Amino acid sequence: MASPNHIRRAADVVAARRARGDTVAVVVSAMGEATEDLAGLARDLSRAPSRREMDMLLSSGEQVTIALMAMALRELGLESRSFLGSQVRILTDSVFSKAHIREVETSRLEAYLATGGIPVVAGFQGVDAEGEITTFGRGGSDTTAVALAAALGADECQILTDVDGVYTTDPRLVPEARRLERITFDEMIELASQGSRVLQIRAVKFAGKYNVPLRVLHMSGQGSGTLITYEEPDVEAPVVSGIAFNRDEAEITVTGVPDIPGAIAAILRPVSDARIQVDMIVMNSPRDGCMDLSFSVGRDDYAEALALAGKSAAALGAGEVRGNDQVAKISIVGVGMRTHAGIATRLFETLADQEINVRMVSTSEIKISVLVARSDMESGVAAIHRSFELDRPDSS
Amino acid sequence: MASPNHIRRAADVVAARRARGDTVAVVVSAMGEATEDLAGLARDLSRAPSRREMDMLLSSGEQVTIALMAMALRELGLESRSFLGSQVRILTDSVFSKAHIREVETSRLEAYLATGGIPVVAGFQGVDAEGEITTFGRGGSDTTAVALAAALGADECQILTDVDGVYTTDPRLVPEARRLERITFDEMIELASQGSRVLQIRAVKFAGKYNVPLRVLHMSGQGSGTLITYEEPDVEAPVVSGIAFNRDEAEITVTGVPDIPGAIAAILRPVSDARIQVDMIVMNSPRDGCMDLSFSVGRDDYAEALALAGKSAAALGAGEVRGNDQVAKISIVGVGMRTHAGIATRLFETLADQEINVRMVSTSEIKISVLVARSDMESGVAAIHRSFELDRPDSS
Repeated sequence: MASPNHIRRAADVVAARRARGDTVAVVVSAMGEATEDLAGLARDLSRAPSRREMDMLLSSGEQVTIALMAMALRELGLESRSFLGSQVRILTDSVFSKAHIREVETSRLEAYLATGGIPVVAGFQGVDAEGEITTFGRGGSDTTAVALAAALGADECQILTDVDGVYTTDPRLVPEARRLERITFDEMIELASQGSRVLQIRAVKFAGKYNVPLRVLHMSGQGSGTLITYEEPDVEAPVVSGIAFNRDEAEITVTGVPDIPGAIAAILRPVSDARIQVDMIVMNSPRDGCMDLSFSVGRDDYAEALALAGKSAAALGAGEVRGNDQVAKISIVGVGMRTHAGIATRLFETLADQEINVRMVSTSEIKISVLVARSDMESGVAAIHRSFELDRPDSS
Repeated sequence: MASPNHIRRAADVVAARRARGDTVAVVVSAMGEATEDLAGLARDLSRAPSRREMDMLLSSGEQVTIALMAMALRELGLESRSFLGSQVRILTDSVFSKAHIREVETSRLEAYLATGGIPVVAGFQGVDAEGEITTFGRGGSDTTAVALAAALGADECQILTDVDGVYTTDPRLVPEARRLERITFDEMIELASQGSRVLQIRAVKFAGKYNVPLRVLHMSGQGSGTLITYEEPDVEAPVVSGIAFNRDEAEITVTGVPDIPGAIAAILRPVSDARIQVDMIVMNSPRDGCMDLSFSVGRDDYAEALALAGKSAAALGAGEVRGNDQVAKISIVGVGMRTHAGIATRLFETLADQEINVRMVSTSEIKISVLVARSDMESGVAAIHRSFELDRPDSS
């Protein structure tokens, strides 16, 4: 929602869905720079604004767009009405600025849908048990949309974005990148968690958990976009569906961690308690009663995580704590990996050909991630895209 | 609240009150042009925006300022927390954009005040029994402040504005105008209802009803401003306290109204049902079973009121309906009028000296209002200010 014109066009898309007989509920985010403008005001007044007050402040952005969207829909002759998160109600825990949804009450929305109205619901925001406004953090409007689709038992949750679907990798980096017609939740979760910015990972997880078919579409409403479902790709499906990457990673290594029960948890617990996402975790086999533990975090959280790890290491009597925030992550994702051998080997060979050092590795059933120097990221992604022939629709 | 700087300065005023030991609750309005900007977005999307959606939209403005004000107070080391109308809760009827307060629940605020915190409450907005956001119309933040002061049993309700008090008349029109140290609720209500823009009339009525001493102050917090209370002015008090005026008036006359019971109500009821304020009402003595009814409304409501009067007149079999929206109102106000004779005479003589025609007159115990041509308003106010010697502190 960048401007009144965007709202008008989104209203047209909703009206078109409606005209073909669909029952529609709409979730909107704040307008373009509104959230950043509000955050700027807060920074002007306070060095460390209270998170509660930030949620109060930022949630006003969606309040503006839901009212405008309802007006735009009414102007098209449709019955429409806006709903705040607290009015729906979208119940969350009380973790301001990073709240999690506990329950979506649907009685009010269902009653309104039954009258033929189009509810327009504020994304990104909920309300806790005490009536405090909470927000979900970046991209939280996608999460709202999926949670609502799940709660209402919707046939499909369509996310209108500025791209026309999910690509094999970022087309700005690799011009040969292709739009995927469909992809599984698992693949999309891996892609999203590995840095693909199309959808927020929590939204995809929600969609997978409640089996809500999710479609990523251009905001014009045109094209089929990319459908994200549980269905397995057919046997002809490619081994690797896509490549994700994240420029802003940091790694932290604690050496000489005593090999006693709970030592790893003692280091990682304070970090996760601070709501810092720990991504890759690597440890070597203990030697002389000690081991080295490495983990990666987002670059924004680097300083805090490093300090927390330092404290824990000191308390444990561990050795040195080292860090590096000039690293990036590349991930290849594909459900086909399950049944194909040698994918990791091909990946490492490709990187070796480019003389790219791999600093950390982490694998899951359908994903392999590597941490590399930030300066190597672009050439690495391009080489992997070629190597796995993702530019060819029939690659396998 | 025009900018972050205004918020910071208002926070300083609150901190100063607090430092001298006062228990303080703060009510804030939206930032400077925020409300107008939002209304502009709505007009861009809809020719006749739903009032419910307008309230949803506009109430976001105060949501921004309460969060920012709480942040500014916290930055000064004070404990503070923002509250929406729906969180307080300020219960209203369901008349969107012109809602009336039914009840102010104080339990949450009192609990918070008891902890030493400074609650920052959103002005202008409330919530109806169904949880819908309502707004109070123009100047509604003053109303919130007084309603809250009354509900909390505050010693004084201070309204920080861009003027340093209530004046004998608008100093922009009459440079000799003087600030009044004190004035009664009744006088202030008359001044406010007659066009003085310092305070919203509903706020003053509320203050009078619950006997909340109201002080109008400059936003710097400096000076004693003007105190509005029930106390009668002493015997030395001036006969006329102030002159109010309103440029944007319109008059409507229905001729040949049948002199039957309910005829006047039949004409005025549809107008007031449309929430149009009817101000002056004048009728002549019936002759030949018919009378002429004239009344004044705000210029914004002129077209609608004229149409409604036309319909009612036709239904009643009345004569012609005439209107004029090029008129203005001048009012002189003073509790001293009760005990002084000849005030009206002096007023009419003054206007006659200026060759100003009086089109309509209405009097109350402490006020005389006249409707004149708009082009005569300024010279009329200046002449009356001189004539009643309002420029002299000891005038009587």
